Amino acid sequence: MNDKPKIAITMGDPSGVGPELCLKLLEDEETLKFCQPVIFGSAVTLELAANELNLNSPKNILNYESWKSSETIDPKLQLIDIKNMNSKELMKGQVSMKSGQASLEYLEKAIDATVSKKFDALTTCPINKASINMAGCKYPGHTEILAEKTGAHEYCMMQYSKEVTASFVTCHIGLKEACSLISQGRILTVIKLTAKAIRSINDSKPDSIVVCGLNPHSGESGLFGEGEEEKVILPAIEKALLMGYNVSGPIVPDTAFIPEKRKTTGAYICMYHDQGHIPLKALAFDKAVNVTLGLPIIRTSVDHGTAFDISWKGTANVSSLLQATNLAAKLCRDS
Amino acid sequence: MNDKPKIAITMGDPSGVGPELCLKLLEDEETLKFCQPVIFGSAVTLELAANELNLNSPKNILNYESWKSSETIDPKLQLIDIKNMNSKELMKGQVSMKSGQASLEYLEKAIDATVSKKFDALTTCPINKASINMAGCKYPGHTEILAEKTGAHEYCMMQYSKEVTASFVTCHIGLKEACSLISQGRILTVIKLTAKAIRSINDSKPDSIVVCGLNPHSGESGLFGEGEEEKVILPAIEKALLMGYNVSGPIVPDTAFIPEKRKTTGAYICMYHDQGHIPLKALAFDKAVNVTLGLPIIRTSVDHGTAFDISWKGTANVSSLLQATNLAAKLCRDS
Repeated sequence: MNDKPKIAITMGDPSGVGPELCLKLLEDEETLKFCQPVIFGSAVTLELAANELNLNSPKNILNYESWKSSETIDPKLQLIDIKNMNSKELMKGQVSMKSGQASLEYLEKAIDATVSKKFDALTTCPINKASINMAGCKYPGHTEILAEKTGAHEYCMMQYSKEVTASFVTCHIGLKEACSLISQGRILTVIKLTAKAIRSINDSKPDSIVVCGLNPHSGESGLFGEGEEEKVILPAIEKALLMGYNVSGPIVPDTAFIPEKRKTTGAYICMYHDQGHIPLKALAFDKAVNVTLGLPIIRTSVDHGTAFDISWKGTANVSSLLQATNLAAKLCRDS
Repeated sequence: MNDKPKIAITMGDPSGVGPELCLKLLEDEETLKFCQPVIFGSAVTLELAANELNLNSPKNILNYESWKSSETIDPKLQLIDIKNMNSKELMKGQVSMKSGQASLEYLEKAIDATVSKKFDALTTCPINKASINMAGCKYPGHTEILAEKTGAHEYCMMQYSKEVTASFVTCHIGLKEACSLISQGRILTVIKLTAKAIRSINDSKPDSIVVCGLNPHSGESGLFGEGEEEKVILPAIEKALLMGYNVSGPIVPDTAFIPEKRKTTGAYICMYHDQGHIPLKALAFDKAVNVTLGLPIIRTSVDHGTAFDISWKGTANVSSLLQATNLAAKLCRDS
């Protein structure tokens, strides 16, 4: 009997910390109690990493094509081998088209496997934006690729941690442009997606959602900015309140994250990337999980990049991948 | 003999937490060892606060006019009484023109007293922007008033705390406008002022200055934003390096404030208000001190507002005012 959620794990960029993290994940007894993680990656690369970093190699491996034609997943399966890398092609800790291409292939195949319900959820290791761009991918990151491949229109990034949870109205875009992209409709969408997500995570946190202002001091009653708080953010909050959501704001951004306020806040709605990512990384570095809300599949991710400076050295911290895998498993049980 | 630095303390908005904080400051034995704080405020208001909140009233008081005509400062002097409030006019915890007017008068007289060298430094309690605006003051806050009154052109706000210290390229202005105001010259000015300040504070922190990017991921090599990192921020850093400053960046803003990076950073140069204020308040709430750099006088301030919601209740935390007064005293000794 294997009724544990099956989580498709992408190995990420072979040149980065992904291979090392995957090997460490496969060894984590606590995680294996709650779910079955299966890596979508390269057996040759993982074998090399295991040898160099003194970790165990995956033992239960299926070629991608063999797996594709099978109906069920062996409860001991650890790796679906996508043979797109050889050891000579690997450029450790460097941007490379080959690694970018390989990481995109793991992702695409893992998305297909999850959309087709052979897996219950998807958890991703980091890809490198410069490498995927060299490989011809025009997107800035996972979220946008996932949205396109799954046909999602209303989606957003949420970063989840015990200390702070934040969802983003705008994300991977220049700051000035982000200020212009904030709209009532988008804020309302992000409030709805976030409320649903924190209900299913259902931890000990309160269910209240706090919406941040855009400008310093939330505009100080119109003194700073173009009145975005009064014209755009407040009307969205009022609509959400009428729909029954437990939401408040716009709150002054710099006092939003003080310890007392964090205690009573289930999730923050942030207007731009760094408004939420700065306190998240200051307070919960290596502990936050990235969740993409609004997709037809459950998807979580580590909250860090390929970390080329420390990749292939054995020192990468697996905690974010463990948290991401466990949160994906939790969302499966609650969905 | 009284060779302790004499610090002019403004009482701030009478309707806010200022009066309570001033009474608590005058009782703080530790602070009194290192400096002589003298309040510029209203005796009637402080007497009322002392009675209502069960604190000691100031005992050594001089009328402003008597003080003005005296040459020296009595080492026991606690309060210079500016008679501009009576107890009937006081609207506790509320925006009011009268309180706004009174707070501006304490500030103006304290600035004059410091510029004329009768005091060694100035530390300010919070004023209320709406109240001072009702009283006809067009400025958003202390910093701008100080700059005008002292004729300073190249100045900036620095927030100092043990956990994080940050100086600001732009501050009390809308976020979109802030993005357009970032210039090489301004960044270089803020680097220079900050380097000088952290040298005179001379605590156990490193002297390295880290400059943050503007966009998410510092623009991700031009993918997000208008290339501000490459076109504006990097050239300013390169100029500062040529001038011998210990400066680096532009650093990705959201990883700038992780614990490891904080340990090796003396001060951050932030592009906009919330880039620095969010981590400051998340990590050092009620402990940071606001210092205005580039003025002809030493000036520090609490890092919070009038806190009308808790004013005149006896629960206000004096730690930020204590830290501000002590940092001012420290800067006097080092200047």
